[in-house]
Amino acid sequence: MQKNHDEINPPPRILMGPGPVDADPRVLRAMSMPLLGQFDPQFTEYMNEIMTLYRHVFQTRNHWTFLVDGTARAGIEAILTSVISTGDTVLVPVLGRFGQLLCEIARRCRAEVIPLETEWGSVFDPQRIEHAINQHRPKLLALVQGDTSTTMAQPLAEIGPICRAHDVLLYVDATASITGMDLRTDDWQIDAVSAGLQKCLSGPPGIAPITFNERVEQLVLRRKHVEEGIRSASAPDADGEIIQSNYFDLPMLMDYWSDKRLNHHTEATSMLYAAHECARIVVAEGWEARFARHVLASDALCAGLTAMGLSLFGDQVHKMPNVTGVYIPDGVPGEEVRAAMLHNFGIEIGTSFGPLHGRIWRIGTMGYGCSRRNVLSCLAALEATLRQHGHKAAWGEGVDAATAIYAAAD
Amino acid sequence: MQKNHDEINPPPRILMGPGPVDADPRVLRAMSMPLLGQFDPQFTEYMNEIMTLYRHVFQTRNHWTFLVDGTARAGIEAILTSVISTGDTVLVPVLGRFGQLLCEIARRCRAEVIPLETEWGSVFDPQRIEHAINQHRPKLLALVQGDTSTTMAQPLAEIGPICRAHDVLLYVDATASITGMDLRTDDWQIDAVSAGLQKCLSGPPGIAPITFNERVEQLVLRRKHVEEGIRSASAPDADGEIIQSNYFDLPMLMDYWSDKRLNHHTEATSMLYAAHECARIVVAEGWEARFARHVLASDALCAGLTAMGLSLFGDQVHKMPNVTGVYIPDGVPGEEVRAAMLHNFGIEIGTSFGPLHGRIWRIGTMGYGCSRRNVLSCLAALEATLRQHGHKAAWGEGVDAATAIYAAAD
Repeated sequence: MQKNHDEINPPPRILMGPGPVDADPRVLRAMSMPLLGQFDPQFTEYMNEIMTLYRHVFQTRNHWTFLVDGTARAGIEAILTSVISTGDTVLVPVLGRFGQLLCEIARRCRAEVIPLETEWGSVFDPQRIEHAINQHRPKLLALVQGDTSTTMAQPLAEIGPICRAHDVLLYVDATASITGMDLRTDDWQIDAVSAGLQKCLSGPPGIAPITFNERVEQLVLRRKHVEEGIRSASAPDADGEIIQSNYFDLPMLMDYWSDKRLNHHTEATSMLYAAHECARIVVAEGWEARFARHVLASDALCAGLTAMGLSLFGDQVHKMPNVTGVYIPDGVPGEEVRAAMLHNFGIEIGTSFGPLHGRIWRIGTMGYGCSRRNVLSCLAALEATLRQHGHKAAWGEGVDAATAIYAAAD
Repeated sequence: MQKNHDEINPPPRILMGPGPVDADPRVLRAMSMPLLGQFDPQFTEYMNEIMTLYRHVFQTRNHWTFLVDGTARAGIEAILTSVISTGDTVLVPVLGRFGQLLCEIARRCRAEVIPLETEWGSVFDPQRIEHAINQHRPKLLALVQGDTSTTMAQPLAEIGPICRAHDVLLYVDATASITGMDLRTDDWQIDAVSAGLQKCLSGPPGIAPITFNERVEQLVLRRKHVEEGIRSASAPDADGEIIQSNYFDLPMLMDYWSDKRLNHHTEATSMLYAAHECARIVVAEGWEARFARHVLASDALCAGLTAMGLSLFGDQVHKMPNVTGVYIPDGVPGEEVRAAMLHNFGIEIGTSFGPLHGRIWRIGTMGYGCSRRNVLSCLAALEATLRQHGHKAAWGEGVDAATAIYAAAD
């Protein structure tokens, strides 16, 4: 080695981008606990607790509710690659970049992908989706609940019944929305959902909670294949097309997460500890308080940004409460402002993708980071930084407007 | 929620199975540090440090040396699915279960897989591999350096030159062997290697270090595809077959781990911190001391088991120093002994797979867990537990024989 590397010692930050956001310190503490063997009775008990805890998180009774060991898109790919066989038609209403990602992954699963487009910053009318279902007769409808690239949240309550009426499977990517806004897997008749820890769940990226119902279970079991190294004579392969990934093979993951405990991967111990604590914190807070906290922060942040003279991005009726898009004022160097906020205040806000690149900043108020402290600190830092870059926001108005929103709720 | 779940609080354990083994406490400490944004200058600096540190771990100058966010088999699948196109011939010398896994994954990548078999507990003569290469003309030879299922380590120094002479790519799965025994990626002309943290690197499972050279780089770049959401007009797709996984697409991972920092997944922050600390510990110890420590523990453990009257499994010349197979004595209930060792002493030893199931235990001496304390505690606990299950090992001989080996090295 030519150079010694110091130990990990991150500078102090407040993470208010679209994720990852700050982990709850209780989650970091859980990760510092010693490891257990993967078949230790205490560890399999923790695996079972994870299944129970995430049924709460997903508001479901689905038996198959567990973790995929990878970042949020690992959860997406596990569901899509296990559900989609070659040539299946998949309809994807695209809200933004993460809808495009669903198309991308579905194509690699050899699907016939039908993207539905809408202007970035808007959502879909359910009737348009039903029309497209009638037109294309997909096997699967895949969409993102909240797409951080545009800050928009697609209303879902009507989509599930439409899919069920047409015998279409419905998969929802809830990575950015989970526990920051309502997601009723069962009540809304969603067949499969995937998520990640690094947004409102306030854990590190690296493990992906998923859930799916019996409709999906029946479908993927027709593609079941047990590895040669652990196969028994009594378990012949099913006759469906083999799932093209071993790592993301849901029937094998089901065997691992069932009492069979058939060895597949070695479960990511510390990340499972993190996921366990993330969910415990959600349970302890309760849905009503949690959703109200996110709405309040969003209201305060939006009031503050508006009072500073800035303009909000997109359809405000359908904005996610946990991320807010704001236009970069004319003549202001957006990336320089972001860098200065990080350098001077240790506050990170987000840039943006695709058609919005260079046009908006995105500010996250997620989970542990969804707090009065963060909203007010961010507004104060943004005002100062804009001033230092030649753009005068109304003096003190942002912080005062946000404080008033919080005070009214006290 | 019908039941409250307590916080994560694992019982005290000494993990001496085939992995996961105990994490080094310094690694757990690193994971407790606060998160950083994925494009924070400090975080991208940590990503670059990871590349440097793992070049040391893999003994390579390969530029492309980075992490795949998933357990060890995620690293395997990333390499195989990016290298293998439909119909490619892949030759796999199978030492045990993890050789079978390579066959399994390669088949799902639509390869024509040629497995070479050898009795479990033995390794391959390089001439036999060369003969098979001449016969089958594979594009890729894939094999496991150390297969924990049989405790065998395949000598590799001659395999690379054979592959190079026949223009075959060589991929090695070093999950179980990395830093517990020598692996000279460049000197031995290995084109790609993958690993995991949860064996001798003494971190938690959940992230997979990989490395590959220009031969692999050139091959996978012919299959490059940039996601629609972040594609620019100046970067058209390559004309090779698209890689069937988005998550495991090496060219996209390369863009993310290069100065382009093209967004792909969100890097698993805490697991990266863990990987960083694991490698720092390896660098600090040095190769000579580290390999000697593993050999010494293996010698002491084997001497102890033999002195107790137990028989070692497999070709002892090619046994991995970090895991040891020992026959379960006739009439002894192997699983009951394992359970009693865990219950009474908090010591976990391993069961086994396939043809060895119920016939041998596997005892790991890996990384942080490769210590005099662990070897002697395990022997003492095993002796007592055997006695309590009606099998009398020679009284005190095991611990004394192992102590003598350690004393001679003091």
